[in-house]
Amino acid sequence: MNKMNHKFELAARPVGMPKRTDWAYKQEPVREPGEGELLIKILYISLDPAMRGWMNEGKSYIAPVEIGAVMRAGGLGRVTASKNPKFVVDDYVYGAFGVQEFAISNGNGITKINAGTVPLPVFLGTLGMPGMTAYFGLLDIGQPKPGQTVVVSGAAGAVGTVVGQIAKIKGCNVVGIAGGAEKCNYLVQELGFDAAIDYKSEDVRKSLRQHCPNGIDVYFDNVGGDILDAALTQLARGARVVICGAISQYCNTTPVKGPSNYLSLLVNRASMKGMVVFDYTDRYPEAAREMAAWMAAGKLKSREDIVEGLETFPETLLKLFHGENTGKLILKVADA
Amino acid sequence: MNKMNHKFELAARPVGMPKRTDWAYKQEPVREPGEGELLIKILYISLDPAMRGWMNEGKSYIAPVEIGAVMRAGGLGRVTASKNPKFVVDDYVYGAFGVQEFAISNGNGITKINAGTVPLPVFLGTLGMPGMTAYFGLLDIGQPKPGQTVVVSGAAGAVGTVVGQIAKIKGCNVVGIAGGAEKCNYLVQELGFDAAIDYKSEDVRKSLRQHCPNGIDVYFDNVGGDILDAALTQLARGARVVICGAISQYCNTTPVKGPSNYLSLLVNRASMKGMVVFDYTDRYPEAAREMAAWMAAGKLKSREDIVEGLETFPETLLKLFHGENTGKLILKVADA
Repeated sequence: MNKMNHKFELAARPVGMPKRTDWAYKQEPVREPGEGELLIKILYISLDPAMRGWMNEGKSYIAPVEIGAVMRAGGLGRVTASKNPKFVVDDYVYGAFGVQEFAISNGNGITKINAGTVPLPVFLGTLGMPGMTAYFGLLDIGQPKPGQTVVVSGAAGAVGTVVGQIAKIKGCNVVGIAGGAEKCNYLVQELGFDAAIDYKSEDVRKSLRQHCPNGIDVYFDNVGGDILDAALTQLARGARVVICGAISQYCNTTPVKGPSNYLSLLVNRASMKGMVVFDYTDRYPEAAREMAAWMAAGKLKSREDIVEGLETFPETLLKLFHGENTGKLILKVADA
Repeated sequence: MNKMNHKFELAARPVGMPKRTDWAYKQEPVREPGEGELLIKILYISLDPAMRGWMNEGKSYIAPVEIGAVMRAGGLGRVTASKNPKFVVDDYVYGAFGVQEFAISNGNGITKINAGTVPLPVFLGTLGMPGMTAYFGLLDIGQPKPGQTVVVSGAAGAVGTVVGQIAKIKGCNVVGIAGGAEKCNYLVQELGFDAAIDYKSEDVRKSLRQHCPNGIDVYFDNVGGDILDAALTQLARGARVVICGAISQYCNTTPVKGPSNYLSLLVNRASMKGMVVFDYTDRYPEAAREMAAWMAAGKLKSREDIVEGLETFPETLLKLFHGENTGKLILKVADA
């Protein structure tokens, strides 16, 4: 094996938007797996808003990435050598392989993928973490009832598209908030949302009043900031607000904007609850089965925004924070 | 009957702190009760932070007080004439009698008080709305378990004193946040709180870290603002934040300060839920029985801060917003 591994290490803790100089692009020879190890050729890397948080110092739901370490990322790859009895060559696997071309692993925390049922990238999106986040965040925390109104922000993203579609499957009135006419058309025309609000050209508060005449029963928040505040003004009695993320705040150089209208929780006897998908690991298989069945039945559509080339990573990641992706943003590293 | 009724009407919607000129002090002859009505001589008027909200225009959990209307307030009085079969002269009654000396009522929404068991003012405090708020907010929304850490802000107020004592009865580690050494001593020495933090002289975040080494399991918030933000930084996994009020924000002339650290809800899988005591009307008797038993057993102490004279109302109300009361603030209008 004379292959070289290329990788992105975290070189500096970014201030605001991550810059290319916050990364070190390095290469090293790929080593043979040792006893119990396997070698994975990475094919697709998942790019997620949460990655911005992992680059910061300090306590969170997961340890920060250390300076000089390969940047953490979920990925999908093919086993090319194995001295681990649980894996054989040509197994397709999912794991936190990092932003690189090859990974050596002892097998812990790695899941085999049932390739061939759906295109591989779907396992990083609708049948991967974003899909699980949508499924458990909406159904477990949001608990929508048929006929209720569900609003989701970041609606054209990997999580938002799935939240809205599951809410439709559950018989809800679904309103998505996204940036730009193209995304909004996609939500309504392709995914069957009842309405979409373009936050770049509309007064979100006014449009929510129009599309949610009986108030919002479930608000699934991926963005934070002013849009969270607008949604809080329109809560129905007993509403559930699911705090999944706050992408509008991750690259702030000023303090996070707290929701000024949080007292709407009091007026409306509403709740706001945070969720972290890792808490649901035990139930992933159940969710994946149900979601795969919805996909097979044509009720749940998956969309991926795939960019090729490991070396584009620093810029491709920024598509998330500029709101440029529709569906799941994925970096393609190699052909299967 | 040649008696005169004196009353405070809302004359203007206040900006910031209510001023004397926001009220009109008026008098009128007391009229005889008509068929089905009763006449109540008001003895004690409850002064509550929520009153500031009722003075604002706009949708809330209750309609605003109209300009020219008697200011809404809970009160305790004695029936002095009755043409209502459910009430007789010398019944002691609780109701929303307003800021005045006499009230005529058709009896709707009025509760008879079992006077003689405890001093009358206790029915406006620990066995009244503030006590009910503490009981249901803590037990129903907060759901503290024995050994868990409960933190309450506005701890020396009518609600806070009861929250902390009930949490102690339930076997929790209880930390109160209040303004000034005197209040803090009272909480620890008299009421048995485990610790008290003086927000006027201490770094609240640092003191919370010290007194809550395993994090906060239940945070009962009466104040909002920076103290809410400080508490959010110290949440334990799965914490419950009860939003009962936000007295630090009610007299703002700038927008409400939202909690910048709300993403701690996500990191800690915590929830924040609003409560309005009126939702628990059906269960008041159950709570009142249990709390009266705790009082009789010496486990629950009640304290009232009683100011005499209806005409002092505009200034007395401000004691709440200046943090000058310890226990339940009450305006005494007449002798029983």
